[in-house]
Amino acid sequence: KINPDRLWDSLMEMAKIGPGVAGGNNRQTLTDADAEGRALFQKWCEDAGCTMGLDQMGNMFARREGTDPEALPVYVGSHLDTQPTGGKYDGVLGVLGGLEIIRTLNDLGIKTKHPIVVTNFTNEEGTRYAPAMLSSGVFAGIHTQDWAYDRVDAEGKKFGDELQRIGWRGDEEVGARKMKAFFELHIEQGPILEAEGKDIGVVTHGQGLSWTQVTVTGKDAHTGSTPMPMRKNAGLGMARILEKVDEIAWSHKPHAVGAAGHIDVYPNSRNVIPGKVVFTVDFRSPELSVIEDMEKRLRIEGQKVADDMGLEIAFEKVGGFDPVAFDEGCVSAIRNAAERLGYSHMNLISGAGHDACWINRVAPTAMVMCPCVDGLSHNEAEEITREWAQAGADVLMHAVVETAEV
Amino acid sequence: KINPDRLWDSLMEMAKIGPGVAGGNNRQTLTDADAEGRALFQKWCEDAGCTMGLDQMGNMFARREGTDPEALPVYVGSHLDTQPTGGKYDGVLGVLGGLEIIRTLNDLGIKTKHPIVVTNFTNEEGTRYAPAMLSSGVFAGIHTQDWAYDRVDAEGKKFGDELQRIGWRGDEEVGARKMKAFFELHIEQGPILEAEGKDIGVVTHGQGLSWTQVTVTGKDAHTGSTPMPMRKNAGLGMARILEKVDEIAWSHKPHAVGAAGHIDVYPNSRNVIPGKVVFTVDFRSPELSVIEDMEKRLRIEGQKVADDMGLEIAFEKVGGFDPVAFDEGCVSAIRNAAERLGYSHMNLISGAGHDACWINRVAPTAMVMCPCVDGLSHNEAEEITREWAQAGADVLMHAVVETAEV
Ligand SMILES: NC(=O)NCCC(=O)O
Ligand SMILES: NC(=O)NCCC(=O)O
Repeated sequence: KINPDRLWDSLMEMAKIGPGVAGGNNRQTLTDADAEGRALFQKWCEDAGCTMGLDQMGNMFARREGTDPEALPVYVGSHLDTQPTGGKYDGVLGVLGGLEIIRTLNDLGIKTKHPIVVTNFTNEEGTRYAPAMLSSGVFAGIHTQDWAYDRVDAEGKKFGDELQRIGWRGDEEVGARKMKAFFELHIEQGPILEAEGKDIGVVTHGQGLSWTQVTVTGKDAHTGSTPMPMRKNAGLGMARILEKVDEIAWSHKPHAVGAAGHIDVYPNSRNVIPGKVVFTVDFRSPELSVIEDMEKRLRIEGQKVADDMGLEIAFEKVGGFDPVAFDEGCVSAIRNAAERLGYSHMNLISGAGHDACWINRVAPTAMVMCPCVDGLSHNEAEEITREWAQAGADVLMHAVVETAEV
Repeated sequence: KINPDRLWDSLMEMAKIGPGVAGGNNRQTLTDADAEGRALFQKWCEDAGCTMGLDQMGNMFARREGTDPEALPVYVGSHLDTQPTGGKYDGVLGVLGGLEIIRTLNDLGIKTKHPIVVTNFTNEEGTRYAPAMLSSGVFAGIHTQDWAYDRVDAEGKKFGDELQRIGWRGDEEVGARKMKAFFELHIEQGPILEAEGKDIGVVTHGQGLSWTQVTVTGKDAHTGSTPMPMRKNAGLGMARILEKVDEIAWSHKPHAVGAAGHIDVYPNSRNVIPGKVVFTVDFRSPELSVIEDMEKRLRIEGQKVADDMGLEIAFEKVGGFDPVAFDEGCVSAIRNAAERLGYSHMNLISGAGHDACWINRVAPTAMVMCPCVDGLSHNEAEEITREWAQAGADVLMHAVVETAEV
């Protein structure tokens, strides 16, 4: 079993970097705070006897040598970046849980045949740079590196330039590494495990995602002197489309969700009828056909709203991935570990996207989840208990060590 | 008659300061561009033989002496600040039209008994600092200066500090000046004059305004892993309220308008259900009872939406003024001038708020309007013809000179 106090202390230590405004974190990707978090993680890994690799996307790979250095390594990890108002565990638990495995194996003097590599993937959250899971996506060959480097944030700064600026662009070719397997521990970010009273979620599938960026164009005009019939109010158009997004998601209940988290209004002045609104619709479902249906209906309903109001509308797909089925062998390794350790468990479909979803394309992959309080995540108030963190890390360790062979 | 080419050249010269992105202007109040525009206006006024006064709100007063320096001055003017995506004429025409009067009187060697003072009021637009017409409001005793200094912009910068920073805080007590009358020339910002084919609008009334800032609070949560029934989506709440705003305004047609130009979504991340949305509803009507009814219904309907969705909601009135009836004597002076000069004219109710609406509380006041293309304003594409500008400035001059007595 891992050392729960050491794991918890490391989580709290990392949370001091890029603090939020309400007890959580704002350690967005490629910020100075991200660089500081990376440096701390590197120091911890080196203290634990690992050597650090760094690829051209800034992905970090801390390697603990195996007794057979030629054997394919077993990878474990997640991400250290956070939402602008994010929690202390989303991603971080998976990275520091991986580090805790190394520390525990060191304490116990256990050697594995296959090397173990603890990984921090760059820009999992996708807030500053869409899409989410950008760097595991490049690793898995989903996106090209050039395309990733050209992503821009809200201030027009490019991903490639910012990676260089914070000093975490490595030389290693992205995706060159071969993995025996990849395991990711993550908080559930949903309410099911807590409601069912289970310690462990054995993640068999991940639901798919579609991000459509919608641009509604009307006409900037004076809110006072422009008669109602002459208005082309892009803000009202956006409002009507958001209502449709909600209707579309509910029409597929219980297994689909939809919302817009990102909304920018131009010129955003109290006495100017909005001439332009840009917003991103997030649809998800475990079924590809449902996602495709929702995407299609968004375009049809959005076009109808625009036509009725004399507005222009444009749709652009800015992110997405298909539903995922994880590797049966890896999934079994996790389920067996939970069973062996006496933790209660159940199968889960991940509601969120994870680096594991892309790595699954290039290596046998699975995920283990632990509960989080009220299913709350992407919120500074995100919380877990020390016991949940321990159970998750214990199961992760057993699955990893079994796969890495003692 | 005024010199239309000189007036036009000055308009185009001023428009070079704080250029927009689409041919208009972004010369928001208390920015460096505002300071630059003020300096140019001061130079022009001094070249025309005026002396410049500056009060503690940054209001500028360029005085052309009268033959009786003890006689109460006639004031004329408007504002030089613009919307973030504003036009070249909104406000500027009224200030430079006033300057053109001075220049024309100088050319013709005409002296008036009463001094004439050309005025530039600070922060008429209200974009960077709500409410609109802030400094004419302090001048008229509607707001205290301390309260005005404490207004903050979106970056948390205070009005008083920014006024000091750009170097345009004067020593003169605000509102100490007494006016024989105040005249303001402004573009209509609406479609009526152009549609009716009239050169001149004789503004008899101004409609009233109410700005209510609405804060809807839900719960930041993950867009993927939070089941639909558990969501508290403040963005969807905002969307439903915007639909109500539109319904409420239409229910009073043809004489009421309503919209939200300002909408801020938090944390504004693609995969976070908005936990908070702040937006400002702008309702207007020439009838006070209609404005009061719309405000009341917004609060009732907004509360209903919030209650239905498990959201919190708060309302704050951040700006407003009652409908205005301008001074009959000043209105007649404008109508007579248009008549005498042979310009076609009609009575108008101003759809927008103007500095004249506040100054009307402390001095006999009226406004003259000229058409603008397609009624478009608060848009970089705002446009007028040289002939419309000339007609407006001619009428303004005749009304001012008649009141200032030759
Ligand atoms: N786990 C997580 O929040 N990932 C971000 C990508 C997503 O929105 O699902
Ligand atoms: N004229 C003008 O646009 N003033 C700004 C105040 C308002 O919104 O009416």
